[in-house]
Amino acid sequence: MGSFKGHALPGSFFLVAGIWWTGKHSLWHATRRNKNIGSSRLASRTSQRRLEIIESAAILFFSLVGMLAEQFAADGPKLRLYDSAENHWKDLMNWQHSTMYLFFGLAGAVSLIIHCTEAAPLALDRLMVAVAFFNEGFLFLYHLHGRSMLDVHVHQLLLYAVFGIALIAFLEVFHRGNILLELLRCTLTLLQGSWFWQIGFVLYPPHSPEWDLKDHNNMMFITMCYSWHLAVAMLIVSVLYSTVSCVVRSRLKRTPPMEMGLLKPRERDPESEDEIL
Amino acid sequence: MGSFKGHALPGSFFLVAGIWWTGKHSLWHATRRNKNIGSSRLASRTSQRRLEIIESAAILFFSLVGMLAEQFAADGPKLRLYDSAENHWKDLMNWQHSTMYLFFGLAGAVSLIIHCTEAAPLALDRLMVAVAFFNEGFLFLYHLHGRSMLDVHVHQLLLYAVFGIALIAFLEVFHRGNILLELLRCTLTLLQGSWFWQIGFVLYPPHSPEWDLKDHNNMMFITMCYSWHLAVAMLIVSVLYSTVSCVVRSRLKRTPPMEMGLLKPRERDPESEDEIL
Amino acid sequence: MGSFKGHALPGSFFLVAGIWWTGKHSLWHATRRNKNIGSSRLASRTSQRRLEIIESAAILFFSLVGMLAEQFAADGPKLRLYDSAENHWKDLMNWQHSTMYLFFGLAGAVSLIIHCTEAAPLALDRLMVAVAFFNEGFLFLYHLHGRSMLDVHVHQLLLYAVFGIALIAFLEVFHRGNILLELLRCTLTLLQGSWFWQIGFVLYPPHSPEWDLKDHNNMMFITMCYSWHLAVAMLIVSVLYSTVSCVVRSRLKRTPPMEMGLLKPRERDPESEDEIL
Amino acid sequence: MGSFKGHALPGSFFLVAGIWWTGKHSLWHATRRNKNIGSSRLASRTSQRRLEIIESAAILFFSLVGMLAEQFAADGPKLRLYDSAENHWKDLMNWQHSTMYLFFGLAGAVSLIIHCTEAAPLALDRLMVAVAFFNEGFLFLYHLHGRSMLDVHVHQLLLYAVFGIALIAFLEVFHRGNILLELLRCTLTLLQGSWFWQIGFVLYPPHSPEWDLKDHNNMMFITMCYSWHLAVAMLIVSVLYSTVSCVVRSRLKRTPPMEMGLLKPRERDPESEDEIL
Repeated sequence: MGSFKGHALPGSFFLVAGIWWTGKHSLWHATRRNKNIGSSRLASRTSQRRLEIIESAAILFFSLVGMLAEQFAADGPKLRLYDSAENHWKDLMNWQHSTMYLFFGLAGAVSLIIHCTEAAPLALDRLMVAVAFFNEGFLFLYHLHGRSMLDVHVHQLLLYAVFGIALIAFLEVFHRGNILLELLRCTLTLLQGSWFWQIGFVLYPPHSPEWDLKDHNNMMFITMCYSWHLAVAMLIVSVLYSTVSCVVRSRLKRTPPMEMGLLKPRERDPESEDEIL
Repeated sequence: MGSFKGHALPGSFFLVAGIWWTGKHSLWHATRRNKNIGSSRLASRTSQRRLEIIESAAILFFSLVGMLAEQFAADGPKLRLYDSAENHWKDLMNWQHSTMYLFFGLAGAVSLIIHCTEAAPLALDRLMVAVAFFNEGFLFLYHLHGRSMLDVHVHQLLLYAVFGIALIAFLEVFHRGNILLELLRCTLTLLQGSWFWQIGFVLYPPHSPEWDLKDHNNMMFITMCYSWHLAVAMLIVSVLYSTVSCVVRSRLKRTPPMEMGLLKPRERDPESEDEIL
Repeated sequence: MGSFKGHALPGSFFLVAGIWWTGKHSLWHATRRNKNIGSSRLASRTSQRRLEIIESAAILFFSLVGMLAEQFAADGPKLRLYDSAENHWKDLMNWQHSTMYLFFGLAGAVSLIIHCTEAAPLALDRLMVAVAFFNEGFLFLYHLHGRSMLDVHVHQLLLYAVFGIALIAFLEVFHRGNILLELLRCTLTLLQGSWFWQIGFVLYPPHSPEWDLKDHNNMMFITMCYSWHLAVAMLIVSVLYSTVSCVVRSRLKRTPPMEMGLLKPRERDPESEDEIL
Repeated sequence: MGSFKGHALPGSFFLVAGIWWTGKHSLWHATRRNKNIGSSRLASRTSQRRLEIIESAAILFFSLVGMLAEQFAADGPKLRLYDSAENHWKDLMNWQHSTMYLFFGLAGAVSLIIHCTEAAPLALDRLMVAVAFFNEGFLFLYHLHGRSMLDVHVHQLLLYAVFGIALIAFLEVFHRGNILLELLRCTLTLLQGSWFWQIGFVLYPPHSPEWDLKDHNNMMFITMCYSWHLAVAMLIVSVLYSTVSCVVRSRLKRTPPMEMGLLKPRERDPESEDEIL
């Protein structure tokens, strides 16, 4: 998977996930905030659950596809782990990527079960997301032995986003429905997605000349570049959040803007889901 | 204790502990959730306490046995710390293992006192568990000087589970009865147990050829292997949890499944013990 | 920007910010504590918001000025990133500083929007402050390659303050209005400001002889010096806090000191804003 | 201060502090638990405050004495920082120790002000304790350059206790009056005290032969030794806590032991001070 496509593919996946989550959480937050003005609560609860089920199924599906692709692609290990003829492990990279997909698949499956049945506490879905991202970061951490300086550096920067998401998702187990944590998670997911693309462009430049992987100036530039990706991710999330908020507000209320000034005390309260569920 | 048995024994111990804890916490959580339907609360409280006392006594007993075995086995130090004839410490490994058992024994003893008398706050038992596992990880951390690469690596991976348990148990001091934290602790305990077995198989293979302890591919395989152990541990915990939940539900209620859909709001609340005690 | 002025300028900025924040939070805390005695609550709310808007606008303004100065000063990159003639990145330092200013500018802009409109949760302003300082520390962290020992050391010490502020601001997302966290953030901001001056004096001494950047005794002295800066910052914050408290009390109440003894139970409660808003 | 006495002195200080704190917190916790049975609450509040004032004054006094002793002892720097004749810093060690005392003195002074007047939030005293211990650990961290292996190791082990106390005290800012956190802080303070003695015995053995500071077995023994110190500290704290609890109970109640079984629900509640103040 050491190729441009091999980084662009997961990058696109995380970009889509980040945008989807931003939309979802913005929509729900806006509905919660305006629920006393007209959004019928019961409908929202049912449709929320349906949305969660669809999302979980999609995650589960793509994880399975990913695992199968890693195993049965042209150069895949085809479920064989050890090559006893040549006495070495077969295609460890593919196996590692399969393992990462496995944990995302588990998170999807558990989330599906939680939202279909009443079997487990709701917060378990966030815990599984935290475990899946932690596992991804854990495998990357021991993935980098013997590579050149810049290669190691761009993957280490990736780990900030990965472990950041794991931490935020773990905090959400205790502060479920806190819109700030949710949007922060979305931001970091977008950052991870766009950074995968950046890694692809740096290590396997499709058209341009190759990068000098040992130049310290390149390393300093890449570090700064990471900050820019973060800034752009924050921008995208805030634009999406604002758009969704405005649309929901204009749809639900049709009330003159004068009245909005009175909403302050109410707006602060439902920051966490717990209080209103 | 550097032998296959020396790793299989603690591994089995932690596996049993993990399964026992999973069953216990699942049972109590299921009882709490369904308490309004029929499980008489008072009985449950008394039997809970009896169970805790038995568990604490067992932990205390096995820790004492472990300490004595380490000291008075054939090659043990027999309570002598310094060999003044040859001017070196006697059997430091055995002493270190004794010290680990000592802290688990302390945790068991304190838990016994807490649940027999009313002398100390209930949360102290979790704090002692946290201290015991922290101490185990702390001793392992300075245990690895001068070993070969893979040997160090498999023990470092062990530390993730050990310090993870210590952290989760410390969080439980503040969030007692949170079923997710409890199950996470169970998962990590199972992981630790099965990983001890894995270490035994890697470092002291009983039948197969020896591993090359300096091969980097082996290290990458082992890292991935750790993720698989985690996945299996999660699977075992969830199967156990589901089984116990189903059995409790079918025993206690004998109500048609139609009614379950109504339980949602109630199910969310008693996630933490504090609210219902 | 490697010059005395280049460190004195941000130092002064953070010193002013620290003093301003100390005054602001002390004032509001004092007003909250004494609100039942005479400070009309509504007025306070409106003026608080006005103050926040002015502060945010100032931060935004100075960040923009900083970015422009870094780009278009005599030796700035003038928005060109890559010098294709000589095949290297142009003025990476200036670009890094611009990036730091960018995140502070974003924090100011978001804070402006939050306090002008009702679009986003209030706690977002603290989250943006946390991100801005985290980004500053993150860029400094990879800023130090190949410098001499003492140079690296004084910048590492700076990171304690920077990441400390980021952490405290993140905690404030959950504990908004906790006066202790606010004052701790002020203290660390002052520390950062005065430490920038100290760095300037150590690395680019204006009048005195140069420091030996490889002497270990200098390093030990500098470490201790950092503690003194912290002590002085704590002193300044406590003097400011006491002064503001006394002034507010004497203005608002005009009650004999005898009555103060009765305030105890009331004083403890409003430590966090949430309880009174 | 590199001598046996130089380690025994702070060791004794921390041992006394640990025992004093254990007694104080045990007494108050026992009083809180039994307050409905007879301990007149008002009296307790006044005497608590008096005790705090005495403690703070003692800390302030001993810190001042310590600072003066470091400065004006036979080989002290006598407030001169730089020896311009020989062009080096004068007695950096003494200055560092003075700085440590300074922060403990600040914590004492602030605590004195808090409990005498009503000027600042109560939790500030714990925050100052956290800062004082953090500062101690921070100075030790950069204190160890160029020493031999075992010397570095015993001081690093000390840091576990020091930063542990700082962390626990910081948590107490948010969970004031939680008896478990208080006793944990006492335990770590005792551990720090006895470990200072141990360091003295290892590095400057008064009667026995010198230790080989480069032997790896010594390092492993010392690590284990640290665990034993922790176990003994836990033992001392629990014995003290039990004794104080029993004495308070027998003094206050004079009720037959039969009734104690009923106290369970009440005992759990007042674990945190906030709920009853």
